[in-house]
Amino acid sequence: MTSSLNPDAIIEAVESVINRSDFEPLHAPQFEGNEWKYVKDCLDTGWVSSVGKYVDLFEKMLADYTGTKHAIAVVNGTAALHVSLKLAGVVSDDEVILPAFTFIATANAISYCGAVPHFADIEFSTLGLDPEKLARYLSEITEMKEEGCFNRITGRRIKAVVPMHTFGHPVDLDPLFEVCVKYRLELIEDAAESLGSYYKGKHTGHWGKLSALSFNGNKIITTGGGGAILTNDTILARQAKHITTTAKIAHAWEFVHDQIGYNYRLPNINAALGCAQLENLPEYIRLKRNLAERYANAFADIQGVKFFKEPPNSQSNYWLNVLILDESCASYRDELLAKTNQCGIMTRPAWRLMHQLDMFSQAPRMDLTNSEALSNRLINIPSSPSIVSRTMEVNNG
Amino acid sequence: MTSSLNPDAIIEAVESVINRSDFEPLHAPQFEGNEWKYVKDCLDTGWVSSVGKYVDLFEKMLADYTGTKHAIAVVNGTAALHVSLKLAGVVSDDEVILPAFTFIATANAISYCGAVPHFADIEFSTLGLDPEKLARYLSEITEMKEEGCFNRITGRRIKAVVPMHTFGHPVDLDPLFEVCVKYRLELIEDAAESLGSYYKGKHTGHWGKLSALSFNGNKIITTGGGGAILTNDTILARQAKHITTTAKIAHAWEFVHDQIGYNYRLPNINAALGCAQLENLPEYIRLKRNLAERYANAFADIQGVKFFKEPPNSQSNYWLNVLILDESCASYRDELLAKTNQCGIMTRPAWRLMHQLDMFSQAPRMDLTNSEALSNRLINIPSSPSIVSRTMEVNNG
Ligand SMILES: Cc1ncc(COP(=O)(O)O)c(C=O)c1O
Ligand SMILES: Cc1ncc(COP(=O)(O)O)c(C=O)c1O
Repeated sequence: MTSSLNPDAIIEAVESVINRSDFEPLHAPQFEGNEWKYVKDCLDTGWVSSVGKYVDLFEKMLADYTGTKHAIAVVNGTAALHVSLKLAGVVSDDEVILPAFTFIATANAISYCGAVPHFADIEFSTLGLDPEKLARYLSEITEMKEEGCFNRITGRRIKAVVPMHTFGHPVDLDPLFEVCVKYRLELIEDAAESLGSYYKGKHTGHWGKLSALSFNGNKIITTGGGGAILTNDTILARQAKHITTTAKIAHAWEFVHDQIGYNYRLPNINAALGCAQLENLPEYIRLKRNLAERYANAFADIQGVKFFKEPPNSQSNYWLNVLILDESCASYRDELLAKTNQCGIMTRPAWRLMHQLDMFSQAPRMDLTNSEALSNRLINIPSSPSIVSRTMEVNNG
Repeated sequence: MTSSLNPDAIIEAVESVINRSDFEPLHAPQFEGNEWKYVKDCLDTGWVSSVGKYVDLFEKMLADYTGTKHAIAVVNGTAALHVSLKLAGVVSDDEVILPAFTFIATANAISYCGAVPHFADIEFSTLGLDPEKLARYLSEITEMKEEGCFNRITGRRIKAVVPMHTFGHPVDLDPLFEVCVKYRLELIEDAAESLGSYYKGKHTGHWGKLSALSFNGNKIITTGGGGAILTNDTILARQAKHITTTAKIAHAWEFVHDQIGYNYRLPNINAALGCAQLENLPEYIRLKRNLAERYANAFADIQGVKFFKEPPNSQSNYWLNVLILDESCASYRDELLAKTNQCGIMTRPAWRLMHQLDMFSQAPRMDLTNSEALSNRLINIPSSPSIVSRTMEVNNG
């Protein structure tokens, strides 16, 4: 078996697709729609803050786009996760299962609830939680009681599972949902990266009791900073709105709050940006899927590396494009990262795995072979929708 | 002693000052400076989110304006309080002293730390914590140990005191600071309402180890939603920046986080708004102090009610103007609230006192006579800086 990888060939393949003039970021937003118009409207009317029509409109547009009953706009994706976990009933000393392969926010949100992250492995085909491996693991370590599913080793209740749709690629949700039903675990989707991604024809976020979106600057659409909770449960939606807006009881002038709440409101001016961005989302997805196709072609014959394609049964937003180095070529990763970044092509490795961070090193976890293998072999490459729009004419002309 | 109050006379006095054409809100922001220019710059350059020059500039402008060494911009005032308490060393099961007379966020932030709010009384001259009454109370209920000041009744450590500068009026900080030194309590100022307010010539926020500002839509300047931590301690400032930005260790491409952090970043687009607003702050304060003077004159001879003037030793931003009904006229409050709001003049009573909310009804507290008396007799009246600017010509002409 040959194990050669030529970093320059990889750079050439990327260059052939992105056709850059100078520095190429990993993901840059585009503001070529109604962004100006809506933001200026906020300034002209004085409605920039917690009240104003764009928050309501953005929530309605999000619900419509994702096909969920309710969307609650919040200040960012981390806040969306925190509140989703809380409303799903996660309390102090519960354990919550999540992939070791994720962005820190998933684990942090669990910690904010006083709960303990419990790390599970991912599968190669989705880069997300492996339902079958999880089922096997749970059958070994848990016992069911009146109050739910308990970890026999730690004695703690396992309350929820938080899959994350890595770089926009949907987790295999149907079997995961079944595992959750069997073990009476709440399913909360971390859909921060998967706005515009579908699994079996339905938008991600539909399987979770509640799900979290992010509109951070690097996401497929941005509100500056922002997030949303998706849910089909009307009572939970009402509670989500209530506790993200300081749990104030509606009244013309009285200030009465009926529980400990949060200031997790999305300001109107950020929601205005979101409305304009959401109008362009179908176009971004078209451009990004086209970009992924170009990368797939450019890397078809490059040795030592594979371009990651969307999992079966799913249609991905291809938020961040992914190269996976062959197992035998993993040692080239750092050289490749250094070379690409030095020459102005921004690339990034996987996040440090959660159980390898000091504060989570003692947290419970299953065997994480796949996570560990993948994290050493994965590189994200430039993925802005603008790449395709600026090269469109060239290719069409 | 007469005890009469004529609601119509009060409405007339307000009307004589505000000279309104239609609905008059309690506090509306003004965007007549560089707001659009800076926000447009964010959209044009694509820097709307967590990176961008306006966050740095806003922090520098805030530090300069307040004369503190460091300002750390965050997503809102509640987040600023939460992080300030955490960095001051407040941990689970500590008690933290705060006024019962405050907005819910002060108490919520304490709860987020797992700590217990302990309610103290205010004084009539400042509407804020009464240092002398607090000193007397602490001498009765506490004992000093190696680890700090302990509540003898609950057995819990009392770790910090959070005064709040009500409606912009500075608390009597010097004697309060002395109490904190004596009992080894950390002082954290809730300066959410007092940007532009000075005590003995220094900006509020200087006495606290860390202090919190808010730029919510109803505040003297707004960023849509936003806040800041002020501190003169360089190490704490660095920690504050670190844990409000997910505690990520700086690296060109690695994602390593060294503790449980928060996504409490202020987006660049909101900071852009803040820079423009801050440029106009001196003018807002001039207008608002002028408005307060006009109210003081208009209410000089109105029976049953007093216009609240800034405390001795201080210069207030007069964020929200305050009427205090005479003790004998307290029963008129609700009629007055109803009548003013019905005729389009927005007014508001004090917040429901913290210990009267269900979730804090069991929390420790001292005698709260002043808080209870004031909360039934206080009304906020319209306070927008635009009131004076739109009536300026009339009065000057
Ligand atoms: C997987 C994942 N979860 C959660 C978040 C948190 O979202 P935010 O940055 O809006 O708080 C992000 C994005 O940053 C993410 O990628
Ligand atoms: C006294 C006080 N503390 C804290 C806050 C919280 O600030 P924010 O609304 O920006 O979270 C506010 C303002 O809302 C306030 O008035």
